[in-house]
Amino acid sequence: MSNDPTTDPRLRSWVDIAEGSDFPIQNLPYGVFRRPGGTPRMGVAIGGFVFDLAGVAEAGLLDHVAVEQSAFHSSSLNSFIASGRSVWRQLRARVSELLEISCPEIKGAPGLADRSLVPMSEVELLAPIEPGDYVDFYSSLQHATNLGRLFRPDGEPLLPNWRHLPVGYHGRSSSVVASGTPIKRPTGQLKGPDEPPRWGPTERLDIELEVGFITGRANSLGESVPINGAEEHIFGVVLVNDWSARDIQAWEYQPLGPFLGKSFATSIGPWVVTLDALEPFRVAAPAQDPVVLEYLREEQRRGIDIHLEVALATPDMPKAHVISRVNFSEMYWTMAQQLAHATSNGTPVRAGDLYASGTVSGAEAGTFGSLIELTRNGSEPITLASGEQRRFLEDGDTAIVRGFCGGGDRPRIGFGEVRGTVA
Amino acid sequence: MSNDPTTDPRLRSWVDIAEGSDFPIQNLPYGVFRRPGGTPRMGVAIGGFVFDLAGVAEAGLLDHVAVEQSAFHSSSLNSFIASGRSVWRQLRARVSELLEISCPEIKGAPGLADRSLVPMSEVELLAPIEPGDYVDFYSSLQHATNLGRLFRPDGEPLLPNWRHLPVGYHGRSSSVVASGTPIKRPTGQLKGPDEPPRWGPTERLDIELEVGFITGRANSLGESVPINGAEEHIFGVVLVNDWSARDIQAWEYQPLGPFLGKSFATSIGPWVVTLDALEPFRVAAPAQDPVVLEYLREEQRRGIDIHLEVALATPDMPKAHVISRVNFSEMYWTMAQQLAHATSNGTPVRAGDLYASGTVSGAEAGTFGSLIELTRNGSEPITLASGEQRRFLEDGDTAIVRGFCGGGDRPRIGFGEVRGTVA
Repeated sequence: MSNDPTTDPRLRSWVDIAEGSDFPIQNLPYGVFRRPGGTPRMGVAIGGFVFDLAGVAEAGLLDHVAVEQSAFHSSSLNSFIASGRSVWRQLRARVSELLEISCPEIKGAPGLADRSLVPMSEVELLAPIEPGDYVDFYSSLQHATNLGRLFRPDGEPLLPNWRHLPVGYHGRSSSVVASGTPIKRPTGQLKGPDEPPRWGPTERLDIELEVGFITGRANSLGESVPINGAEEHIFGVVLVNDWSARDIQAWEYQPLGPFLGKSFATSIGPWVVTLDALEPFRVAAPAQDPVVLEYLREEQRRGIDIHLEVALATPDMPKAHVISRVNFSEMYWTMAQQLAHATSNGTPVRAGDLYASGTVSGAEAGTFGSLIELTRNGSEPITLASGEQRRFLEDGDTAIVRGFCGGGDRPRIGFGEVRGTVA
Repeated sequence: MSNDPTTDPRLRSWVDIAEGSDFPIQNLPYGVFRRPGGTPRMGVAIGGFVFDLAGVAEAGLLDHVAVEQSAFHSSSLNSFIASGRSVWRQLRARVSELLEISCPEIKGAPGLADRSLVPMSEVELLAPIEPGDYVDFYSSLQHATNLGRLFRPDGEPLLPNWRHLPVGYHGRSSSVVASGTPIKRPTGQLKGPDEPPRWGPTERLDIELEVGFITGRANSLGESVPINGAEEHIFGVVLVNDWSARDIQAWEYQPLGPFLGKSFATSIGPWVVTLDALEPFRVAAPAQDPVVLEYLREEQRRGIDIHLEVALATPDMPKAHVISRVNFSEMYWTMAQQLAHATSNGTPVRAGDLYASGTVSGAEAGTFGSLIELTRNGSEPITLASGEQRRFLEDGDTAIVRGFCGGGDRPRIGFGEVRGTVA
């Protein structure tokens, strides 16, 4: 993949792209957008613009790419993703070609550039996928250790199965929402020690900084996805904020796991960055001890060097304050392992399914991906730049998750941001 | 509802219906079928026939029912279900009218009866719904107690939250399959006491006898479904066998709940029996102690008097042997409570979602809905009519779940059966 021309750092586009943009021509992430009053269309982010693939297709410029026209007008990327990897690559190569600085096909056609490029600020960015199934893992060693200490203070923080398999569970797909969707504080059963359960709005509304991968159709009922080659079935990667109500979760979660403490909302980023675009940023994943069973054993363990951060803004502090920074490459379980494990029993994976990493946390203070960790279960509030303190989210707070690879003298492959305000 | 003409026991059909059929004219459950080499069509079970709604609609006999023609040709009932309760009732009333003994519209039209009625043995019955989300509850007091004793022998069998809320979790929707789908024995991580985990086919393949309800679109993000009136959003009820690999489940399930031990397959019945058809069989649900919080408190607690049974057939015993009989009316948590709870945090419910009851078990021997209970975790095998013993399912075994209401001098409102053979 190192000679994939679409990631060549020397590539330049005829589109005017600001220094430090998340979306140079080496990125080309996919999303779904809507002009005011318009219908959903498939697009690619380039600089400050959305490149309107539906429009470009109507102009006849995607005729040799094996994508149904209807996919460009779909409310999600699912039908495009169902077309499979060779078609993903065909379209990426063609979009890269059309946006490359020497290509006359769009920039040379009267008015076509203006019709094909919409300023991002003028459109609504929708959730890029409609997941059939949504799986949430728990793959950060540090996060699992931190939460084990908080939820089970008298036991071993890491349960015996954790280093043998990527622990995960099914989340709710109906509440996977676009960045920007207001998050209504959920109500539920809350229970303090030595008091009966009561009903009320959560008092411990939290974020979870996660990274999700999105699959193509990977297998049929009864088949498994082999660990080596599993990434062939991964379309791309998206930022995730898996909102959590810690008090609802703590009371409900035994013995069958999280349910209403999580299912009220999961925000995902507007842009799916393809594995092809991320290829230059693949790094060795941490070594595993003990050695895992063969169905999880990789010829090459590969993580992704994604710089992640969480920021908070408040009604009194509109400029967001970064509360956590962590790198995704620290994850103990890789995407390939997650996919091989999730299908090891033969359950089918569909195009557009979402597999989230679980909260990404590092070892040091300031690298935790949730407030419950940052504030030690609310006992040590954090202080924001405005002087305000936070244990958990308050009404009006906005949580922002951002992520990017590269930067500096390398192309910056950014994910944009996932944003949600507590309503 | 007691004067709903479609459930009048005096109703008779011009279709020849065998004594004891699950499908008299008072039932009219919906399903999706396919003639050999044909495409999916929506149908209604009547006696030993499928009443082909797509064909009847093409003949112009459903013109005054507000259902899109495409719904009759859909691969699932989802789009019909999305049309809402008043349309559900319109169609039911019209189908009842067309099949009623004095109605000439079909029986009097040359050849139309033959074209509209297909012998059930000549068609493939598909899964009637494509669930967006699949939730599995744990609502039988006896089952939760039995499993608590087996999985946590040193603790209280019932966890403290169980009587305060209907415990549940999200299952996998991609592996919800039609009755008759072969069930491949899943592989996974198995771990005995004092030994490291190993990889292999499950040695504890089990069934779970359940009843599921299927929703219409019930609410939008941020709204809840109020407990009183919750059933207005329930389209109907279906039999469920939630296959389980007990050894995979036991090792993986803490702290986030069941995952691969359940996600390999969930078989559902071919026929969705509407709440309207079940209305004559509604009974008082068990009293609850302690009193539940207000969002779960019902003006009238209503269960359904469904006779359920599980039977096993083996290669050496083709005639199925009934291993368990139990009544669904014993469930501690009602469907209305399950739906109100599941949406209490504002998560949306879509048309065609599946909410399963959890295993239905009674208090006495012979009334347990899973082998792990019937055999006390495999320690006390059951003996079949053939003399064979079973602790868990063996290859070639066929599990059959059946259910019906009424019978005797009342119309028998049956669900047909859910069948699956271990491949």
